[in-house]
Amino acid sequence: MKIIVDGMGGDNSPDAIVEGCVDAVKELGLNVIIVGAREIIENELSKYDYPKERIDIINSTEIITNEEEPALAIRRKKDSSMVVGLRALREGLGDGFVSAGSTGALLAGGLFIVKRIDGIERAALATVYPTTKGVSLLLDLGANVDCKPEYLKQFAIMGSVYSEKILKVKNPRVGLANIGTEKGKGNQLVRQAYELIEDSNLNFIGNVEARDIPVGAADVVVCDGFVGNVILKLTEGMAKALFTSLKEEFTKSFQSKIGALLLKKQLKSFVGMLDYREYGGAPLLGLKQPVVKAHGSSDAFAIKNAIRQVKEFIEMDVINIIEKDINTTRNIQ
Amino acid sequence: MKIIVDGMGGDNSPDAIVEGCVDAVKELGLNVIIVGAREIIENELSKYDYPKERIDIINSTEIITNEEEPALAIRRKKDSSMVVGLRALREGLGDGFVSAGSTGALLAGGLFIVKRIDGIERAALATVYPTTKGVSLLLDLGANVDCKPEYLKQFAIMGSVYSEKILKVKNPRVGLANIGTEKGKGNQLVRQAYELIEDSNLNFIGNVEARDIPVGAADVVVCDGFVGNVILKLTEGMAKALFTSLKEEFTKSFQSKIGALLLKKQLKSFVGMLDYREYGGAPLLGLKQPVVKAHGSSDAFAIKNAIRQVKEFIEMDVINIIEKDINTTRNIQ
Repeated sequence: MKIIVDGMGGDNSPDAIVEGCVDAVKELGLNVIIVGAREIIENELSKYDYPKERIDIINSTEIITNEEEPALAIRRKKDSSMVVGLRALREGLGDGFVSAGSTGALLAGGLFIVKRIDGIERAALATVYPTTKGVSLLLDLGANVDCKPEYLKQFAIMGSVYSEKILKVKNPRVGLANIGTEKGKGNQLVRQAYELIEDSNLNFIGNVEARDIPVGAADVVVCDGFVGNVILKLTEGMAKALFTSLKEEFTKSFQSKIGALLLKKQLKSFVGMLDYREYGGAPLLGLKQPVVKAHGSSDAFAIKNAIRQVKEFIEMDVINIIEKDINTTRNIQ
Repeated sequence: MKIIVDGMGGDNSPDAIVEGCVDAVKELGLNVIIVGAREIIENELSKYDYPKERIDIINSTEIITNEEEPALAIRRKKDSSMVVGLRALREGLGDGFVSAGSTGALLAGGLFIVKRIDGIERAALATVYPTTKGVSLLLDLGANVDCKPEYLKQFAIMGSVYSEKILKVKNPRVGLANIGTEKGKGNQLVRQAYELIEDSNLNFIGNVEARDIPVGAADVVVCDGFVGNVILKLTEGMAKALFTSLKEEFTKSFQSKIGALLLKKQLKSFVGMLDYREYGGAPLLGLKQPVVKAHGSSDAFAIKNAIRQVKEFIEMDVINIIEKDINTTRNIQ
């Protein structure tokens, strides 16, 4: 198995990316192709001791930044690490692709170059969402901000496959993010999506209120990309704001400082629960080949985990199963 | 000044409601009319020592529950405490109305009985949202799940007035909840709303990402009712989930228990930051008279604060200012 990695994307490229690739080939028993400026990548690689035959480089001369308009950047920067990497994937030089670069560009590139599975109306960006009971899968995270009910149904199908095959959840409980639990609640989009998902053969548990998402009310939480993005970013923002306040409170007196010191281990373990690095990246579901978006601020550990994720994505045959499930459901209608 | 209070709404009615009314007349120098089953209310009132001439009772024989379909309940239960109270408000027996009963019913009743300000397309439910820098105002919270751009603009105007007059924010920074900060981001609704709000004379600071809401990125956060409800409920759910995890972590060892004990005061003060009781209820903005929804689980303290809020609502002439601002903006177009 060979995973193609965008060597120039993300805040910590290329050093953390290269280090993550080295760790991946050593620990995961796979090969990696790093796409990037050859000299720079070679220089980074020279710092490590690793099985040389397991890492190749494909040269690229351009980099797509977060500031660029995604679709335009993909069209214009034909020699960017992202476009070169996605093309290499399509041409079969590797089995999957990881990038910590611009989310929008990766999505646009995935659609233009790798293309959607036949029968899939929209590709979705999904993420593992930590809950008090473990993790859920949340999708879409912003790939599709204006959705039709049918898209949400397809997100439900894709999310269910990913949850079962990659997160190892048996018969995943699929919930529709909504503002009330009863059927008939919510806006036009979710009311219609409810009917469609209800008619599928998924383990649909109905509507899930936002307040119940952090306690793991569903294994797969389905929503349009606008709402999903709000859920993900508010979760990050809340966690950060609560820590800041807690930290301030804890350093207010000598007594509280001692208290905080005694609790150091617990606080750290608590922070760990919210650590997105542990869970790898965000898969783009609905494409013909496995593509995973690693967090922009990924370190070597996060990159290694994203590579591991693509490996499982491939091993578990997620894409073929999605294609089968989508088209079975279409034929039923 | 006379505030009408729904004596039978909410989880803790009538006892906590009546106690809150007693505290309000003693502390706030106003009169209260409690709507409810006369005997029950009189019996509750007999427990307290207070200026008798300051509390009147209007008898009602029915109660609207949270389980009932809101519009239907308002139409059918003509002798419910909520309908009788809203009618008394419209007939001028009091200057404002507080209820801890069904949010949907209060909204429906507000629209049917009290009616919208001329020029207002939709009434919105707003709430004070605690941030690390103080509080913001968030609206709409679910009164309107399918919105047009014009509604969001009106929410922005109403929110700005409320923030300035009641929350005492000078020249409130109005932000549009979105999935990116740049203009042009988001779904069709917010992209169009952006243009409309930009053209107003509000202090519009543009888009606000969900991750920045908890750190007080805007004084007024505008969104459609679906997104607002998700933001509010996810915030509640996250706070609850984080406390649960923290509590579990803190009781894992003898050392951590001692630590938690030393931090007791700080943890309490931190919880206080998230205490919605402090901030009173959720105003219904856009109606011809002041109506405030108190939290369903309001205790006497929360009810007193909601009554205080209606008092300021009236004193600051919020409704007339909203009417003026809305119609000025309409004439400009």
